[in-house]
Amino acid sequence: MEIKISRTDNSRVHELKRDEIVFGQEYADHMLVCDYKDGQWGAPEIVPFGNISICPSLSALHYGQSIFEGVKAYRQPNGGSAIFRPEKNWERFNKSAQRLGMPEISSEIFLDGMRELINIDDAWIPNEADTSLYIRPFMFATDEFLGVRSSFTYKFMIINSPAGPYYNKPVSIYVQSSFVRAVQGGIGFTKAAGNYGASMYPTAEVRKMGYDQILWTDAFEHKYVQEIGTMNVFFIIDGKAVTPDLNAGTILAGVTRDSVIALLKENGVPVEERPISIDELVEAHKAGKLEEAFGTGTAASMSFIQDLTYNEEKLTLKPTTEYTIANKIKTQLDDIRYGRIEDKQNWLLKVKQSVLI
Amino acid sequence: MEIKISRTDNSRVHELKRDEIVFGQEYADHMLVCDYKDGQWGAPEIVPFGNISICPSLSALHYGQSIFEGVKAYRQPNGGSAIFRPEKNWERFNKSAQRLGMPEISSEIFLDGMRELINIDDAWIPNEADTSLYIRPFMFATDEFLGVRSSFTYKFMIINSPAGPYYNKPVSIYVQSSFVRAVQGGIGFTKAAGNYGASMYPTAEVRKMGYDQILWTDAFEHKYVQEIGTMNVFFIIDGKAVTPDLNAGTILAGVTRDSVIALLKENGVPVEERPISIDELVEAHKAGKLEEAFGTGTAASMSFIQDLTYNEEKLTLKPTTEYTIANKIKTQLDDIRYGRIEDKQNWLLKVKQSVLI
Repeated sequence: MEIKISRTDNSRVHELKRDEIVFGQEYADHMLVCDYKDGQWGAPEIVPFGNISICPSLSALHYGQSIFEGVKAYRQPNGGSAIFRPEKNWERFNKSAQRLGMPEISSEIFLDGMRELINIDDAWIPNEADTSLYIRPFMFATDEFLGVRSSFTYKFMIINSPAGPYYNKPVSIYVQSSFVRAVQGGIGFTKAAGNYGASMYPTAEVRKMGYDQILWTDAFEHKYVQEIGTMNVFFIIDGKAVTPDLNAGTILAGVTRDSVIALLKENGVPVEERPISIDELVEAHKAGKLEEAFGTGTAASMSFIQDLTYNEEKLTLKPTTEYTIANKIKTQLDDIRYGRIEDKQNWLLKVKQSVLI
Repeated sequence: MEIKISRTDNSRVHELKRDEIVFGQEYADHMLVCDYKDGQWGAPEIVPFGNISICPSLSALHYGQSIFEGVKAYRQPNGGSAIFRPEKNWERFNKSAQRLGMPEISSEIFLDGMRELINIDDAWIPNEADTSLYIRPFMFATDEFLGVRSSFTYKFMIINSPAGPYYNKPVSIYVQSSFVRAVQGGIGFTKAAGNYGASMYPTAEVRKMGYDQILWTDAFEHKYVQEIGTMNVFFIIDGKAVTPDLNAGTILAGVTRDSVIALLKENGVPVEERPISIDELVEAHKAGKLEEAFGTGTAASMSFIQDLTYNEEKLTLKPTTEYTIANKIKTQLDDIRYGRIEDKQNWLLKVKQSVLI
């Protein structure tokens, strides 16, 4: 596949303040753009990062056909770089596209395009501890039309943003039992923009109450836990790891979730993917068997949960520094991402082998 | 309130082919724009219709804080013009905004701004039978930021599009019992872009099967009817009008729905707003008491339903030309909109009193 490349004459990379990178506010020099029309994708182009011009009737703004992914590239010890499991994001992107009535996209455009873009913007991958380059592929409907129907045209883009060290403060969770994120038959399993818009108000409300994030529950009984804000959720109960299964199609099939399950198993921790009720968590906590709790996601890799509040009941866990399993898995996951241990699972897509290439 | 007005030097109104207007594809000469930042709305401006420049990280495209309304202006017999119940759309717009974590907007910006815009674009309100000027107010998040949180900045706009005569062919409806539009605790009552994106694929699927639209059912039992595509739904059963109530927050509080309820009552037809199960419809049809069925919405005002298919069962109604009640109400509603009968309900917001003003 031919990618047309127009390099910028004015790299901004020297302006990046590497000791105070704010997530999601600065963008690398280039972006990938690919347009869909007449039933097919055109040739992808890599161009200087910059604004795009849209008609006010842009279909995506009115009818919500808009999806995205979140991926990360990591600086490797030899000076090279690698992207963590982007093929999983490509697969999920196409599942989102299908459910939203949008066209699927080839691995050539999504994966080869991403790799070429990261290669060109290599200088934007930070070197400092716990930093990375956040990669944002997204697609939106571009018809200039006010009727309710699937758009005939779309734009796929990839933009990159340097990500600073993630401050992994233990989180305080509020278990939501009135607002609902997703239901069977809906779009909960997709990374559709609309899912996030619907969560803003409920999340702001629990923040006002002093909690960090919402743990969503099922739409029917508000009893079975689903996912946390932008993360999947895991509990260590009596030495076993349990996490909600994906069968109902109401939660995201997280790439970090999948990776953590694999590492847990490799470390001999039994993993159960199944419905988990609040009652079970309350019981386990009473019996002293709710040992650890954490969220998984691209942003924080693993984020440890300090307490869970459900109605009047607050379940406080032991200090997260004592989370034996979670800390061990998090270290392994980060060590793989930063190339500090062998990538036995073949999770890294190498972009540059070393600085010399 | 001061509205800054920049008129175009190049009106395109003479290019409008009045005998072949396609809905939602052509836009009037001007648009209203108003920006929200630092916790408040700035001054609205009316400017020539045209493209806007956005950053690829525009929050609305990634996190779905995007809402809209649909309103219509009608040419009046004396050459003047009027907008149909826009204050109801303003109220609903603010309910959508609140649920999506977006700022509410004043009636001065929304209503006075709309009136001024329609005044300036008066030449774009078509004259021909059954035509109108479709008015699209919308608001979207404009932060250039990739983190999941409510945007701090927003853009409110109003654009207008001439609408040709609506071809009111009776519709064939498929009752959806696997995909779900909305659930209690979600955003079904809002005109959020995300609600429409989620409906594209299921709607395309039933179109392939030969149906025009989906009648959504409740998320829990797939038993209680909700709304149709972009319309609310009414049934005439044994001389009474029944329509789903708004209590669960899963369906839109349609302005046409509200208007039709008022007209039905005025015409002595009892109206029941309550849950309606598929079983009740099947029973009524068997007993010969499912007399009429129709959808209500801004686009079609009233759209008559010819048949409803639920699983293997197809309920075919009498020819829609024989819908005594629906035809009578539709005529009355249109007569009010086009100023052909007295506006007793005070539903019309007059923009121009006559051509002479």
